[in-house]
Amino acid sequence: MLRAGIIGATGYGGVELIRLLSMHSEVGTPRVYSSSSEGTALASLFPHLHQVELPLLESIDVPSIAENNDVVFLATPAGVSAQLTPQLLQTNVKVIDLSGDLRLNSAEQYQAWYKKQPADAQTVEQAVYGLPEYNRELVKQAQVIANPGCYPTATLLGLLPLAKTDWVDPDTWIIDAKSGVSGAGRGVSLGVHYGELNESINAYKVGQHQHTPEIEQVIQEQTGKALLVQFTPHLVPMTRGILATTYVKLKKQVSAAELQEYYESVYKDEPFVRIRPFGSHPRTKEVSGSNFCDIALHLDERTGRVIILSVIDNLIKGAAGQAIQNMNIMCGFEETAGLPKVPLYP
Amino acid sequence: MLRAGIIGATGYGGVELIRLLSMHSEVGTPRVYSSSSEGTALASLFPHLHQVELPLLESIDVPSIAENNDVVFLATPAGVSAQLTPQLLQTNVKVIDLSGDLRLNSAEQYQAWYKKQPADAQTVEQAVYGLPEYNRELVKQAQVIANPGCYPTATLLGLLPLAKTDWVDPDTWIIDAKSGVSGAGRGVSLGVHYGELNESINAYKVGQHQHTPEIEQVIQEQTGKALLVQFTPHLVPMTRGILATTYVKLKKQVSAAELQEYYESVYKDEPFVRIRPFGSHPRTKEVSGSNFCDIALHLDERTGRVIILSVIDNLIKGAAGQAIQNMNIMCGFEETAGLPKVPLYP
Amino acid sequence: MLRAGIIGATGYGGVELIRLLSMHSEVGTPRVYSSSSEGTALASLFPHLHQVELPLLESIDVPSIAENNDVVFLATPAGVSAQLTPQLLQTNVKVIDLSGDLRLNSAEQYQAWYKKQPADAQTVEQAVYGLPEYNRELVKQAQVIANPGCYPTATLLGLLPLAKTDWVDPDTWIIDAKSGVSGAGRGVSLGVHYGELNESINAYKVGQHQHTPEIEQVIQEQTGKALLVQFTPHLVPMTRGILATTYVKLKKQVSAAELQEYYESVYKDEPFVRIRPFGSHPRTKEVSGSNFCDIALHLDERTGRVIILSVIDNLIKGAAGQAIQNMNIMCGFEETAGLPKVPLYP
Amino acid sequence: MLRAGIIGATGYGGVELIRLLSMHSEVGTPRVYSSSSEGTALASLFPHLHQVELPLLESIDVPSIAENNDVVFLATPAGVSAQLTPQLLQTNVKVIDLSGDLRLNSAEQYQAWYKKQPADAQTVEQAVYGLPEYNRELVKQAQVIANPGCYPTATLLGLLPLAKTDWVDPDTWIIDAKSGVSGAGRGVSLGVHYGELNESINAYKVGQHQHTPEIEQVIQEQTGKALLVQFTPHLVPMTRGILATTYVKLKKQVSAAELQEYYESVYKDEPFVRIRPFGSHPRTKEVSGSNFCDIALHLDERTGRVIILSVIDNLIKGAAGQAIQNMNIMCGFEETAGLPKVPLYP
Repeated sequence: MLRAGIIGATGYGGVELIRLLSMHSEVGTPRVYSSSSEGTALASLFPHLHQVELPLLESIDVPSIAENNDVVFLATPAGVSAQLTPQLLQTNVKVIDLSGDLRLNSAEQYQAWYKKQPADAQTVEQAVYGLPEYNRELVKQAQVIANPGCYPTATLLGLLPLAKTDWVDPDTWIIDAKSGVSGAGRGVSLGVHYGELNESINAYKVGQHQHTPEIEQVIQEQTGKALLVQFTPHLVPMTRGILATTYVKLKKQVSAAELQEYYESVYKDEPFVRIRPFGSHPRTKEVSGSNFCDIALHLDERTGRVIILSVIDNLIKGAAGQAIQNMNIMCGFEETAGLPKVPLYP
Repeated sequence: MLRAGIIGATGYGGVELIRLLSMHSEVGTPRVYSSSSEGTALASLFPHLHQVELPLLESIDVPSIAENNDVVFLATPAGVSAQLTPQLLQTNVKVIDLSGDLRLNSAEQYQAWYKKQPADAQTVEQAVYGLPEYNRELVKQAQVIANPGCYPTATLLGLLPLAKTDWVDPDTWIIDAKSGVSGAGRGVSLGVHYGELNESINAYKVGQHQHTPEIEQVIQEQTGKALLVQFTPHLVPMTRGILATTYVKLKKQVSAAELQEYYESVYKDEPFVRIRPFGSHPRTKEVSGSNFCDIALHLDERTGRVIILSVIDNLIKGAAGQAIQNMNIMCGFEETAGLPKVPLYP
Repeated sequence: MLRAGIIGATGYGGVELIRLLSMHSEVGTPRVYSSSSEGTALASLFPHLHQVELPLLESIDVPSIAENNDVVFLATPAGVSAQLTPQLLQTNVKVIDLSGDLRLNSAEQYQAWYKKQPADAQTVEQAVYGLPEYNRELVKQAQVIANPGCYPTATLLGLLPLAKTDWVDPDTWIIDAKSGVSGAGRGVSLGVHYGELNESINAYKVGQHQHTPEIEQVIQEQTGKALLVQFTPHLVPMTRGILATTYVKLKKQVSAAELQEYYESVYKDEPFVRIRPFGSHPRTKEVSGSNFCDIALHLDERTGRVIILSVIDNLIKGAAGQAIQNMNIMCGFEETAGLPKVPLYP
Repeated sequence: MLRAGIIGATGYGGVELIRLLSMHSEVGTPRVYSSSSEGTALASLFPHLHQVELPLLESIDVPSIAENNDVVFLATPAGVSAQLTPQLLQTNVKVIDLSGDLRLNSAEQYQAWYKKQPADAQTVEQAVYGLPEYNRELVKQAQVIANPGCYPTATLLGLLPLAKTDWVDPDTWIIDAKSGVSGAGRGVSLGVHYGELNESINAYKVGQHQHTPEIEQVIQEQTGKALLVQFTPHLVPMTRGILATTYVKLKKQVSAAELQEYYESVYKDEPFVRIRPFGSHPRTKEVSGSNFCDIALHLDERTGRVIILSVIDNLIKGAAGQAIQNMNIMCGFEETAGLPKVPLYP
């Protein structure tokens, strides 16, 4: 049995990892680590874990972590992985980092968007961006994975096939994204107060969200094109789910059938990407509880634009599920092992 | 006291009119009309109206309506007003139509987007588009008002000042709009089933929503520019509220301060448009229960785009409240009469 | 115009008072006081108040408050009014206290349930319990009002008529109450985190909620019977609304018609209590945004119990609305002045 | 591999069975049956099943069902199983009926509460009430299971240990239950309209819910005591979850520790019942997505009552999950096979 550890187990990402790993036949009960709360039971913080078999929380001690785990997941706030990963990489442990610390190749970009000290260049270089649909071979050989952000996952899976063509004007990408509240984590603030959020929707960080350069970097890596995207996140009164509504202007004529066939062919062997019928409108609920990314294409002939709708469960394909998908690839397991085959509905 | 009638009183728009009129000191208890349910008490359909002083539902009989009302509101499904308004206009009654029947000048457009028989050309021509911030003088003299759609209201109030300038590329307008469920009305269908909608967001009618030509027509009327907008509505798990996130590409350089000052000057005397601080993120809840449209501007210098955030309560500024604002103007009342000064929060 | 002040204006109760007072034709723009935030605009904390005419927040200085106000509302946390009210009562200002500080006659009870230092006995004695339906004459002459708690309001209006009879066994009262989240106030904690509350319901403070002795005290005052009630509050994933489901065992046979007629007769002249049809099931939404308490009666002949369903908007009839109703009575205004006649629906 | 079929696969119970069976290593892809929609793909009705491996819907033909399945689940509306089960029992197939048709021993009771024609007496007699914690041995040998109702499951697991003692007054059981909307099924009606339910709570069927006699019957079977319970269901604005708040009067003195130890001992070997700390307040979210029933005990010494809080996911332990638990027992599988070990949180 693979020995897995979760650093930062006291957040929503951490407990989702615990849940998904509990369904994985190749992985034992994970060890759980936290910068606070050493020696306490996770169930005292998360009553849903009452009587679930789990060790007590341990403090973050690298030698002990390395000795006791084959793989560790970092579900920590920005800045922690930058400190911790270099030490972990000096051991044999595999690292899957769910934070944004290792995603951006450019230290300047990291500092500009995250307002934190970046990880050292060597660690960043070593990290493979864990979007399996595009980097599967690199993931296989990686010791450290930068697990993609929730918004970039939904966005890139929807956008990359078209971005690779010469059908569209690369200066016209607009991504209007909508997320449930769990993406903001479990920390308390007026911003996550039920009375403030319920029955309300708002945009936030317009033009300033740190997932913007991540999207741009991956587009450049995958297509060779340096471009700027307009990315706007919104907060929706729901717990889970992301919908990315992505707009782009066509510069060549392309038919609905061509678009649809192209996307179907790109993803035909992917276990977690489902191309929905042309012109349909996926709902986030239809992927909730699963590792699926559902994509539907629209062609507005009147305006000459393609509109791509892509939905994920932000805590699964946008975080813990994709991390396990990466673990499966790194460890030679079936890629779908431990991941639900059917979304939770309703 | 003004005598007001509500045709189609058994829907959400109808009961919101009743609520708002109950706070209006110049209007008596409205008469209520419905194509079904004649002779029954509205409270039997809407228990929140229990013991609220209201007459029984009456059938839709034009002579009787004309005799008993100075103003009638049509809160009816598409197609009804097209039939009814011509008859009403042969009497002295003023008509405020909350449906889309009289909004589009072009019969072809109406048929193409609404898939219904259009109203006769004369009636359409007579109808004034009741967006007071832009058509106040026409509203004053109108006998019949085409009350704007909910999405167009939020969109146009946010977009028109900028559309009137030569700062932006008119081919790049994208409106990504999000609405609560009440906009879909009280009819039952799987599409409004709680279990289907809760904890979920989806786009709908991408490229095909009937408010698209309405937005384009008003832009043309107000700016002289014929252009096509990309309009995408979304359904959000909440009851009330619309947020329009509107994107446009700048073709001239303009500063944040210029933008902000310009918008503030455009709306400085408007009682129901509030320009929020530059770079802020209005939440729909912040206008809920009020006739306000709140607008915030963002300038993304990196991408050269302006992003406009505008929020309304879809049932008030997007329907019943704006209808009463129009009534106030038509009847020479204080424009704010009967309309709440403070949103309901939380 | 009456000069009104709000102490503790930065909470949900405070802003609801502002909203309701803005619709009151006899009251001017209120002054707003806060223990923090002196000199700032309330709109900086509550953007929904943007451009709403309001003075800046003032610090809590009793002489200045007394000089500038005819009535003050205390929308403050437990413990504040106990300190402040005695000083205010040495001036001519009328005081309406929305906190629990002045409700319990017994200092021991206050300490036992609130775990705070009680107000001095004289102040408590002077305070009239402001449930107008039962204490209207006392309210008229009061200088200080203990405004009822949200749960006691819903509970007592439903329960008192029956408690006054000898039809029921007084040892069998069970009140199972359900509240929206706004009752917990605007303070941040994990307990009001959207991700924790949404899609969930739970009981809290079983057997230990401080509204229990308040209910018992008022029953004793109104019926002469000392009894203990079982009171259980629950937190429901919604913002506003309270439903109290109240159970009692019959000891005499009574018919549905007798029950219904009796309740209708008790409340026939009350503007804010609506007796709904026998056997109906009021929804909290049906009183939302209003000062109504709706009550429906059920008789289970199989088990020999009466079940009373009573619903209010916790922030209106359960707090700010009832406070204004009390102000109206104290000041000789129409009792319904400034209070909405029609609930906000949906 | 066990061959399983689902009759009534087009409702929420049906698709939850599909989801759970997809995680079961001993069961193959289920066949799906429906009285309508023969020959269509379930994914056309439930897009979350897009590309999930499933056969087309088949019509309900008993010989064919019997030939192709070892076990069939009936997730059908009241009345269907009464017709179908007798035919199925003439074959070798095992039947697990999720409807209420086979739960009540008394045909009179069934008619009185369900207003339908009851199943024949022999079939009813043959059916084992599938509450494994109390009927495990009978379930092992059963050919047909009456799978318990959602409310009875939450209620009985909480109430039975205490009902078996002589500590309480059996005439004082009151169950105030709260359910998410999914319990009402996927049929469309005003009663499940988002705009009507959201931001609202209400009781329904007070004194008249068909789960009342089911609870009473099982209490009698398990304790020998014929008694009447007061059962009140409520509709909560959430999709999944049931909380039962159960009240009973003590007639002997019992301590908190005795109560807690007793409950812990009763359920110490049960994989799906978790006794939470004494005096805690389980939230429905803490069992969501799992087959757990969490129970917490409260003792109000002031009033001499015990209050039991019990929570389940209504679609899992209250329906599909318990059905699979029963299947596991009937078929000799590990009782927990295929059922999630960790709830979905948040």
